[in-house]
Amino acid sequence: MTSPRTYVIVGGVAGGMSAATRLRRLDETARIVVLERGEHVSFANCGLPYHVGGVIADRESLILQTPASLAARFALDVRVRTEAVAIDRDARTVLARDLRTGAEEAIGYDALILSPGAAPVRPPIAGVDRGLTLRDIGDMDRIIAAAQDARRAVIVGAGFIGLELAENLRHRGLEVAVVQSMPHVLRPFDIEMAHIVAQRLRANGVQLHLGTTVTAIADDHVVLSDGRTLPSDLVVLSVGVQADSAIARAAGLALDDRGHIVVDELQRTSDPAVYAVGDAVVKRRFDGDPAPVWLAGLANRHGRLAADAIAGRPHAAVPALGTAVIGLFGLTAAAVGRTERELRAEGRAIRVIHTHPTDHAGYYPGAELLALKLIVDAETDAILGAQAVGGGADKRIDVIATAMAGGIPARGLADLELAYAPQFASAKDPVNMLGYVDDNLIDGELSVQWHEVEARLAEGWRLIDVRTAGENALGAIPGSTLMPVDELREHAESLRGQRVIVHCKVGQRGHTAAALLRQYGVIVANLDGGYTTWRAGTQAVAAGAGSAS
Amino acid sequence: MTSPRTYVIVGGVAGGMSAATRLRRLDETARIVVLERGEHVSFANCGLPYHVGGVIADRESLILQTPASLAARFALDVRVRTEAVAIDRDARTVLARDLRTGAEEAIGYDALILSPGAAPVRPPIAGVDRGLTLRDIGDMDRIIAAAQDARRAVIVGAGFIGLELAENLRHRGLEVAVVQSMPHVLRPFDIEMAHIVAQRLRANGVQLHLGTTVTAIADDHVVLSDGRTLPSDLVVLSVGVQADSAIARAAGLALDDRGHIVVDELQRTSDPAVYAVGDAVVKRRFDGDPAPVWLAGLANRHGRLAADAIAGRPHAAVPALGTAVIGLFGLTAAAVGRTERELRAEGRAIRVIHTHPTDHAGYYPGAELLALKLIVDAETDAILGAQAVGGGADKRIDVIATAMAGGIPARGLADLELAYAPQFASAKDPVNMLGYVDDNLIDGELSVQWHEVEARLAEGWRLIDVRTAGENALGAIPGSTLMPVDELREHAESLRGQRVIVHCKVGQRGHTAAALLRQYGVIVANLDGGYTTWRAGTQAVAAGAGSAS
Ligand SMILES: Cc1cc2nc3c(=O)[nH]c(=O)nc-3n(C[C@H](O)[C@H](O)[C@H](O)COP(=O)(O)OP(=O)(O)OC[C@H]3O[C@@H](n4cnc5c(N)ncnc54)[C@H](O)[C@@H]3O)c2cc1C
Ligand SMILES: Cc1cc2nc3c(=O)[nH]c(=O)nc-3n(C[C@H](O)[C@H](O)[C@H](O)COP(=O)(O)OP(=O)(O)OC[C@H]3O[C@@H](n4cnc5c(N)ncnc54)[C@H](O)[C@@H]3O)c2cc1C
Ligand SMILES: CC(C)(COP(=O)(O)OP(=O)(O)OC[C@H]1O[C@@H](n2cnc3c(N)ncnc32)[C@H](O)[C@@H]1OP(=O)(O)O)[C@@H](O)C(=O)NCCC(=O)NCCS
Ligand SMILES: CC(C)(COP(=O)(O)OP(=O)(O)OC[C@H]1O[C@@H](n2cnc3c(N)ncnc32)[C@H](O)[C@@H]1OP(=O)(O)O)[C@@H](O)C(=O)NCCC(=O)NCCS
Repeated sequence: MTSPRTYVIVGGVAGGMSAATRLRRLDETARIVVLERGEHVSFANCGLPYHVGGVIADRESLILQTPASLAARFALDVRVRTEAVAIDRDARTVLARDLRTGAEEAIGYDALILSPGAAPVRPPIAGVDRGLTLRDIGDMDRIIAAAQDARRAVIVGAGFIGLELAENLRHRGLEVAVVQSMPHVLRPFDIEMAHIVAQRLRANGVQLHLGTTVTAIADDHVVLSDGRTLPSDLVVLSVGVQADSAIARAAGLALDDRGHIVVDELQRTSDPAVYAVGDAVVKRRFDGDPAPVWLAGLANRHGRLAADAIAGRPHAAVPALGTAVIGLFGLTAAAVGRTERELRAEGRAIRVIHTHPTDHAGYYPGAELLALKLIVDAETDAILGAQAVGGGADKRIDVIATAMAGGIPARGLADLELAYAPQFASAKDPVNMLGYVDDNLIDGELSVQWHEVEARLAEGWRLIDVRTAGENALGAIPGSTLMPVDELREHAESLRGQRVIVHCKVGQRGHTAAALLRQYGVIVANLDGGYTTWRAGTQAVAAGAGSAS
Repeated sequence: MTSPRTYVIVGGVAGGMSAATRLRRLDETARIVVLERGEHVSFANCGLPYHVGGVIADRESLILQTPASLAARFALDVRVRTEAVAIDRDARTVLARDLRTGAEEAIGYDALILSPGAAPVRPPIAGVDRGLTLRDIGDMDRIIAAAQDARRAVIVGAGFIGLELAENLRHRGLEVAVVQSMPHVLRPFDIEMAHIVAQRLRANGVQLHLGTTVTAIADDHVVLSDGRTLPSDLVVLSVGVQADSAIARAAGLALDDRGHIVVDELQRTSDPAVYAVGDAVVKRRFDGDPAPVWLAGLANRHGRLAADAIAGRPHAAVPALGTAVIGLFGLTAAAVGRTERELRAEGRAIRVIHTHPTDHAGYYPGAELLALKLIVDAETDAILGAQAVGGGADKRIDVIATAMAGGIPARGLADLELAYAPQFASAKDPVNMLGYVDDNLIDGELSVQWHEVEARLAEGWRLIDVRTAGENALGAIPGSTLMPVDELREHAESLRGQRVIVHCKVGQRGHTAAALLRQYGVIVANLDGGYTTWRAGTQAVAAGAGSAS
């Protein structure tokens, strides 16, 4: 090894600290300086909402490491309340300002790693200063203090952080309303899947105002775009984040048009001595254009990769899938990849599959419903995305994300050997079943999405409900005729040559019906996801059209 | 389509009935006859143990379909209490005997599917007739009846079914002893992993007699190979199964040396008009020789594949991984692929990794311990097997099984993007972490397995405990010296050139210590899995040596 090198790291949390500790393990002789603007390093950002609601009782448990513990174990020079205010790339120095004293120091570096993260967006609306945001421990303390005397909270934005806060403020007993400009909660999901989450939120007293924006924040209420007002003594803004990349911009590093730092597969910026990772950088996505992905897993991973590259062990980052999960009032929602909404907007030819299995064998107690959605490239059978809401959603999305990483096509999901015992899964796991359904679509079985039914009926297709009379009586799709699957053989001849949509509760009996009718010369399509998906989708569209629900 | 074809299926449960229903969906005109020797078709074999313990309260819920329901929906001719007694391959007929009347009928077939399953082995010991076994609903009823008046049960064999029964008999309040000839429970696991399960069993009042066999069953006790006796009013035999392949043998179909039917990738036997699936067939394994795999997922999958092939849609089965899971007294144990024990016996060059993370972020309430083991081909980095015991074990094994199916090497586990929020996982998921550890081993970090420590110490290696003094005081490995990781830099120079094993509680601090010492010229190996794995392994060996524990 040559003479000791100096590594400077800006940002001392997920990406930054993962890089720092790894660098130390690879290079015992280096000087490693970590600059952190905030009070704390190595804290659990992702746990912050849960201390607000008391789910995580112990505030200190959120602080995983301290400058002292990192000095002891890793000989790191960690400076909190110290901001990197400028980078001199020619001189290879970072100007560090002690925010308590104002003292500045230029620190030379052999390599610089930027992991400054992303800051909450503050929308340009009147009274925005009254809105709190949640990024760090200080923000959390402020929200808790404000919640102490508050009775009614409005949360602007129904993303992951907004909804986690909604749950936790409910745990504190506040009335909570969430305002969301999109017609549904949780952007990584499609509307009919997000609807299941929305229903759970409503059932737990969270008021949702979808398809609406907040146009002004007053002292005791907020004003919505449709003119209504919502009383509120506490307003939290969670409408997204923006890269905290000002020093990168000032230093002339390449940024994308939204201000994210551009890096190559080794996390190198446009200056090869400067690396960047985490929420502030734009990711290579597995499909489609580069895009930001604000997730802790990638920040940690890329922090380690940057350290590896600096220490002479270059490994390329794999393209990002964007696997994410949220738990809300006991309901799990997880997603990976692209949404149907995005892909249809791009005009991509896709196949979409909805299923509604239980998370484990129905005869074993405690089986929970699981809504699953798979989105597949219609030509290549590549998996483009998946969404899951309900019991075991995290497991199924992890499996599908792994299949995507391994290049397993959608049909190949049928062949996965997943661990089965009745309390954990089914002999055909829900993920296997997605592969079966895809296989049938490849084989030419037709399916219709919930949002396509109306247009098909207008084109003259007939809609047949193959459920039982009892199920039909509890709710049916307008325009449908009842013909239970177990009696379908009697009617099959009479349908020959007709264009027919069959539907059952979830799509499974519809498939058996479709397979039968097809062999009688009926032009038949199965309503994907059955009545369950259709109802979720149509209800969601109504709820997302702009009024309170 | 040509004139209607006749398909005969022998065995009306997992593999057989999956084939029958699928065949119907692919061929509406065919005559499909299902012959089932037992009273019931389509029952949940896997649920049987849980009705014994009352976990599944409703006996009827175990019977998923009946001949009548299958006739109504699938126009299947399902005959229960009807045995296929002979196959005439030249005439293409099956001789079916009605076990109630004795009447026989020769049924012609265009294709025949055998899914006769496997029958419990009855070892050739005195009094074996007193031993009950568990394969079907009738067996279950008999065990429940016998348990009614019993106080003390002995279960012979600690495989999946034996241990599920042990738990469920405990739920009924019986005293339960399990006798196992291997030194540990659950053959698909290695001894130090199985030990965690064994401890849970013991903690719930199950007595284990490992490394022992039952040599005789008397009226009120069993005799063990070491001469001891165990009192018992109920004896269940669960020492394995053997293919129920007598008619296949009589018909001259190719069998392996253990009596399993040999099939090709399309499930065809040596006679191309005869297919076979399920527990009675030998599987192509992903690694190593063909072997039986007795799992419901494969039976279902291969049943559908056989139907597909018969209906002119041939798809090859993928090689089997043998992914399996069991839940015992709230503890989950799952495994995939090969064991260290098997691979070492074969002389394979492997890398072994143990970790002991929590299933989700430690700061979020309810985090459970998870013991993970990964076995890797030392040359190709291919994943050869994995075992998991504890919180979220099923999820992690499903992910690893999927990675294996996708050809992702062990190091690639670090790159998987798995869904993270603090109640579900960690930012570096336990599966990612396995990839990190493997990456370090590829990079030349040395590790030592728990069962290698003694030999290394004998060769003169020094053992250093890098935990805290407090941890060390609670239990240490004989011969170790304490040097907490945070003070290691002070001692590093003094160790230069020495051969040193470092260990911590689980391997993580050991890794940091090893990375440090290596840079000071120490020849250093990290004790894989730390004190935790070492203790489990050494305790397990002691417990498995033959006496009660
Ligand atoms: C409330 C909340 C909940 C979340 N929940 C999840 C979740 O459940 N799952 C998930 O995957 N992700 C979650 N995330 C996102 C996750 O925390 C981020 O993806 C991750 O922390 C990004 O890592 P990073 O290193 O890029 O940025 P950060 O971890 O945010 O660290 C950046 C640090 O850099 C400091 N900094 C910025 N500029 C400077 C400067 N010029 N000088 C000195 N210091 C500077 C900042 O003060 C900050 O502390 C959550 C985030 C929040 C805020
Ligand atoms: C108690 C128990 C628990 C289990 N738990 C699990 C679990 O948790 N997970 C898992 O993956 N697997 C489990 N299994 C294994 C799983 O049930 C089998 O792998 C699967 O059922 C095999 O399917 P098969 O079609 O080959 O045989 P089976 O499902 O056993 O069906 C074979 C049928 O063929 C009939 N038959 C045999 N010969 C003839 C003949 N000549 N004529 C007519 N009929 C005949 C038999 O009566 C039998 O009903 C369990 C098994 C048992 C017994
Ligand atoms: C924790 C933090 C300081 C990083 O410290 P770290 O020591 O690099 O990381 P971890 O504690 O996760 O340990 C990982 C290391 O231990 C090793 N390891 C883990 N378990 C091991 C085991 N059983 N045996 C051997 N090595 C093991 C890994 O290989 C890895 O080392 P490597 O990077 O050299 O390969 C940093 O990630 C951080 O500040 N995190 C908190 C902030 C955050 O992530 N927020 C977002 C989520 S809430
Ligand atoms: C249940 C059993 C009769 C098979 O019936 P089946 O109709 O083939 O299987 P399932 O009820 O699982 O349904 C699977 C079918 O529905 C389809 N399907 C499932 N969900 C669907 C949905 N939402 N939309 C469209 N199709 C769907 C699948 O594609 C598959 O059809 P395919 O094989 O034509 O592709 C048979 O497996 C059996 O007897 N099982 C019990 C015994 C057993 O397995 N024991 C061991 C475990 S305890």
